Amino acid sequence: MKILVLNAGSSSLKFQLLNMEDESVIAKGNAERIGIDDSFLTYKANGKAITTKFVMPTHVEAMQHILEALTDKENGVIKSVNEISGFGHRVVNVGEDYFDSVVVTPEILEDFKAKKDFSPLHVPGAISGMEACLKIAPKIKNVAVFDIGFHKTMPDFVYRYAIPKEDYENLKIRKYGAHGTSHRYVSQECAKLLGGAENTKIVTCHLGSGSSMCAVKDGKSFDTSMGFTPLEGLIMGTRSGDIDASVVGFLCDKKGITVKEAVNYLNKKSGMQGLCGYSDMRDVEANLESNPDCKLAYDAMCYRVIKYIGSYAAAMGGLDAIVFTGGIGERDPQVRETVLSSLKFLGVEFDKEKNPNVFGDFGELSTENSKVKVYVIPTNEELVIARETLNLIK
Amino acid sequence: MKILVLNAGSSSLKFQLLNMEDESVIAKGNAERIGIDDSFLTYKANGKAITTKFVMPTHVEAMQHILEALTDKENGVIKSVNEISGFGHRVVNVGEDYFDSVVVTPEILEDFKAKKDFSPLHVPGAISGMEACLKIAPKIKNVAVFDIGFHKTMPDFVYRYAIPKEDYENLKIRKYGAHGTSHRYVSQECAKLLGGAENTKIVTCHLGSGSSMCAVKDGKSFDTSMGFTPLEGLIMGTRSGDIDASVVGFLCDKKGITVKEAVNYLNKKSGMQGLCGYSDMRDVEANLESNPDCKLAYDAMCYRVIKYIGSYAAAMGGLDAIVFTGGIGERDPQVRETVLSSLKFLGVEFDKEKNPNVFGDFGELSTENSKVKVYVIPTNEELVIARETLNLIK
Repeated sequence: MKILVLNAGSSSLKFQLLNMEDESVIAKGNAERIGIDDSFLTYKANGKAITTKFVMPTHVEAMQHILEALTDKENGVIKSVNEISGFGHRVVNVGEDYFDSVVVTPEILEDFKAKKDFSPLHVPGAISGMEACLKIAPKIKNVAVFDIGFHKTMPDFVYRYAIPKEDYENLKIRKYGAHGTSHRYVSQECAKLLGGAENTKIVTCHLGSGSSMCAVKDGKSFDTSMGFTPLEGLIMGTRSGDIDASVVGFLCDKKGITVKEAVNYLNKKSGMQGLCGYSDMRDVEANLESNPDCKLAYDAMCYRVIKYIGSYAAAMGGLDAIVFTGGIGERDPQVRETVLSSLKFLGVEFDKEKNPNVFGDFGELSTENSKVKVYVIPTNEELVIARETLNLIK
Repeated sequence: MKILVLNAGSSSLKFQLLNMEDESVIAKGNAERIGIDDSFLTYKANGKAITTKFVMPTHVEAMQHILEALTDKENGVIKSVNEISGFGHRVVNVGEDYFDSVVVTPEILEDFKAKKDFSPLHVPGAISGMEACLKIAPKIKNVAVFDIGFHKTMPDFVYRYAIPKEDYENLKIRKYGAHGTSHRYVSQECAKLLGGAENTKIVTCHLGSGSSMCAVKDGKSFDTSMGFTPLEGLIMGTRSGDIDASVVGFLCDKKGITVKEAVNYLNKKSGMQGLCGYSDMRDVEANLESNPDCKLAYDAMCYRVIKYIGSYAAAMGGLDAIVFTGGIGERDPQVRETVLSSLKFLGVEFDKEKNPNVFGDFGELSTENSKVKVYVIPTNEELVIARETLNLIK
């Protein structure tokens, strides 16, 4: 059984073909600049990497070129599209009617369209991807896997905002979170190492250009730092994270901008970028000594991670393990050291010699005496989507 | 030396006359509904409470009636206004140029007017109060004491939001906090009990209709839950506290309201009021069993207090003491029990028998074995303002 996982952005379509017998990746790539000039497809398989320019006005053409690449006589990995058992689509958030993964029908697709405002930057791309699949390969089933899915288990006193009840009921304004497939994957891997999820209290830190954290109690998401949208929580590449909501009003008033522009400003021009001019943590760290703004951005970013770990320990009544994942979590020993050094009061002890050598791979950072286990676990969102897809098409 | 402490709201003027020899309260009261119909003055002194209706179109008339009441032949407590050595005014926030208390001059008053937007609901009232004093008793010095003052010591990585640097520099958008005089007072009282502020890590919980928490490290404010305005942080009577800032945009879009209306909605119609229809915790608790919305509001409110305690313990690298103050903190054993019961992992142990009997007075709730001391310390913001005033007029 082979599953093609698709992760559509507004102008991109990432793909990964997995062999579900051994969960290996057969081929992967990305269609970029869809609907823009100079669109191209990158394709990696059998150790080769190919980049080809194509005209791709919509996700339909992108999907066609992806399937052509996969079935290409020279560099392809399958003989026919029919070898694909299912398409698994990443969908960020279409509201609380869709936490559980679902087989996509034309009716459901219409419902997604009606609910695209929960994630206006992501959902339209995902819809285009699903429409392209239904059009090009109507016999192959499509499964939508939701970024918020893992957070279904949050209690109401966690996910409800303190706003009028009717605006939760009618407008569905609440905490949804995101990065759910990542938090699910790494917390499950961590629970295996702890001997099972029962009675475990894990904090997973998905740190990258977008970052979120999750309090995972007994294997279930209990709380997470992203909120109604991915804006809330940690300081990210260009997102402010937590901020007094009245700042939106002040910005509109003082800068003469619209509320939409103000929210866009908090999503696209803020975060590390806003604080120091660099959105990439590698650049921030490269200038840590010479540029006080970079020092501030670094300290502020790490400080929030530290605070969230403390708050989630309190939320769960203790802490058994901390997991780092995502680009920064997996490949930034400096951030890990800064964070872990602040957690001695929780009984966290880590191996300072080993930490710099864990880079993109699994590793245990905690020492034998540490009361809290600390792991680096590379995430695998595509695998979670492929597994969910396989489950639903069986 | 007698100091008159004044706390002006938009339509009220609370006062308290203190004898600074023994820091006792000689008289206190409130001018209410200033600028509205049916305004009146309440006045308490020598065990008597008097309410008198007066026409008070502005704070000037209110101030006149307060001084007349204090010098009244029958019920007054001083012979002449000249017995008052200084007026101490509570000012919420006029930006980071004013953390330290200051003697008010006409120039400073002009500067306050230019900076009233940092706290548009409070500062105009305070300015009216100061103008009234300068007009009626020009020989008596006025001192402004800022609600944000105690939070001057927050590090930059704590108070800076992750927004473009220039909007901190030009617009002064940052975390300011509030309730500073309260956090200062109770943390100082707590530090005395711990044998001095040095090397102490205290979390102060000021819980009332407005609520905030403060991480106090070595006697200094290190972090606090209110932000640019008092909207951020805990769930309050009618304020939402922490919420994804993008909700402001969604509310404007879906409800067709302005950004100003949306921020007003988060300040005035949200919080406990929004979740369950009751803004007063006493009403919420009275309906806890029968009304699931009240249960949700109660749980959500307490949950955030618990999370902030955990996050501040992590921020400071440990925790020596928790202090409860404010209306709820001093008089709501149920909230205290819910919060403290969740903190066993930090070594918190408290006396469940004693807790219900600590009501509006000082009390130690922690047991002998508790690693973290827990105190109820009634706040006294007026005394802090009077002390600051005395210091500056000497």
